[in-house]
Amino acid sequence: MNRADDEGRVTLSDVAREAEVSISTVSKVLNGHSHVAASTRERVEELLLRHGYPRGRRAGADAPLIEIVFHQLDSPWAMELLRGVEAVAAVRGAGVVVTHSGSRHAPGPEWIEAVVRRRPLGVVLAFSSLSPELKQQLWSRSIPFVVIDPAGDPDLDVPSVGSANWAGGLAATRHLIEQGHRRIGIITGPEDMLCSLARLDGYRSALTMAGLEPEASLVEFGDFHAEGGYLCGGRLLAHEERPTAVFAGSDLQALGVLEAARVRGLRVPEDLSVVGYDDLEIAKWTSPALTTVRQPLREMAEEATRLLLRPRDDKSPLPTRLELSTTLVVRASTAPPPQG
Amino acid sequence: MNRADDEGRVTLSDVAREAEVSISTVSKVLNGHSHVAASTRERVEELLLRHGYPRGRRAGADAPLIEIVFHQLDSPWAMELLRGVEAVAAVRGAGVVVTHSGSRHAPGPEWIEAVVRRRPLGVVLAFSSLSPELKQQLWSRSIPFVVIDPAGDPDLDVPSVGSANWAGGLAATRHLIEQGHRRIGIITGPEDMLCSLARLDGYRSALTMAGLEPEASLVEFGDFHAEGGYLCGGRLLAHEERPTAVFAGSDLQALGVLEAARVRGLRVPEDLSVVGYDDLEIAKWTSPALTTVRQPLREMAEEATRLLLRPRDDKSPLPTRLELSTTLVVRASTAPPPQG
Repeated sequence: MNRADDEGRVTLSDVAREAEVSISTVSKVLNGHSHVAASTRERVEELLLRHGYPRGRRAGADAPLIEIVFHQLDSPWAMELLRGVEAVAAVRGAGVVVTHSGSRHAPGPEWIEAVVRRRPLGVVLAFSSLSPELKQQLWSRSIPFVVIDPAGDPDLDVPSVGSANWAGGLAATRHLIEQGHRRIGIITGPEDMLCSLARLDGYRSALTMAGLEPEASLVEFGDFHAEGGYLCGGRLLAHEERPTAVFAGSDLQALGVLEAARVRGLRVPEDLSVVGYDDLEIAKWTSPALTTVRQPLREMAEEATRLLLRPRDDKSPLPTRLELSTTLVVRASTAPPPQG
Repeated sequence: MNRADDEGRVTLSDVAREAEVSISTVSKVLNGHSHVAASTRERVEELLLRHGYPRGRRAGADAPLIEIVFHQLDSPWAMELLRGVEAVAAVRGAGVVVTHSGSRHAPGPEWIEAVVRRRPLGVVLAFSSLSPELKQQLWSRSIPFVVIDPAGDPDLDVPSVGSANWAGGLAATRHLIEQGHRRIGIITGPEDMLCSLARLDGYRSALTMAGLEPEASLVEFGDFHAEGGYLCGGRLLAHEERPTAVFAGSDLQALGVLEAARVRGLRVPEDLSVVGYDDLEIAKWTSPALTTVRQPLREMAEEATRLLLRPRDDKSPLPTRLELSTTLVVRASTAPPPQG
């Protein structure tokens, strides 16, 4: 069966009629056959373009794709990032292919094979710990890629989009200080992630700038998930001199802290203030609604996708680092500390 | 490089052996070359089909794709479904293309054009209100599709995977009755969705079977989102004779009910029991953790994808309807009613 005919029957007939040639001639032009007069080819190609046929169809290029790769699909993060990629890709008529690398720190070798066959316009990698092999594989195949890097730990030789973690930690802590809190606990992320350390440093700087002494016993390292928030929150709340506020480091960890408070009979925000980080959809619907630091995940993904899609010479490199700002969103989980 | 060879090395050898021709002949058939005897072509094509080679490979098909289309990407549902599709597709080496149709009830005309060009193995549609046009477009292009239909409103001429909504409503309500509740409110979904009505009927049947009179004033129709749960929950809790339990119809609506309870100073589960529906990831981390009806969203998506990927003759239809069971998951948001 003739492929060109099969793919776009209606439009091809229209083109043939308009160009006053046979459908088979249109099909030959599409398929790059040589025995078509140059003037005919030109006319047909012009019409194909006008009717929405991108140049260079035939293989991969005829159905433009953007790839996005996640470590984990089970975090609400993933959806925010996917929405950003999808929104920008849709405008450009590109499909979005989602891959989930699972526990491995990079997709396996079969992934790069599939990507090469799919010939995407580019790849968005939603994790920052890129192996040298992966980078080399993408470079050697001239597949452009951008890293979305909420972890704040970009490779210097890789284009990435991140957000302002230190400033976010600072803003969260300042907000609590302004409410009158003096004993403020923090649950940051894993100790080996730069974003955890940047948020922690922002917290410490806010305390120091307010003349408060950061206290090592009020610092916990979680896992960015609800369970970590629950465990670390439990430890902070069991503290002899209990903090009146906790900066939870992520919205999921904040959920865990809310539960740790509830099981101890502590009301939020009356007995304990809680600040999250991320501003996921769910942050509006926790009880109470969560004061949090908005990390512009969707915008980061949009920016990464725009970088991949912007017209450029084959050789022009992508910019190395783009950092979007974070903003404090005040809702109902923070209030002045109880009168002690 | 010979593309056909590259695509399916192992199976091509098998086909060549079975057809008693050279691999190069099989490749010629695949590539549509003309100098192959008609009888040979027929034999090889028949074997290619039997070995799972869809007709008309060559382009697109060498990087197999599965499409999934959502109305909305902003519900936690979407991620569960995507995970299911991705898990099954990955095992088969297929990429997953995600499309988001937005406010429209079906993806626009440019979508079907893109799908035709991408030539996916099949399409999973994560919504049930298929327009006749969309169905016709997919049928006429021989693109297999399966509907994931948590809404419980399948077209009879369309293969779909759903779950047992009536049984879910029954189980949720029975659980509350067993805890000793007699005044039980329900917030079901929109009135025009069959799943809403099925869950509501399950609720009514559970009441009736327990000798309780269903009360119209205790029935609210929400939107399956947190905001609807908050508004409807507020109305139920403002009731003169307040219900001691609410079956919230979805986990997101349950979040809204938890918040409606909190702002009224009602403790869950001491003063009010709440049951959700779906068992999203978040249901483990609400405060308190949510008793809910588990809707096997991921398994539904897996099943839908398996249906698309299973080997079959070109003409054999997909099964019309597959329904997975729902199960009650008891956590901390339900307890006996307060002593009145």
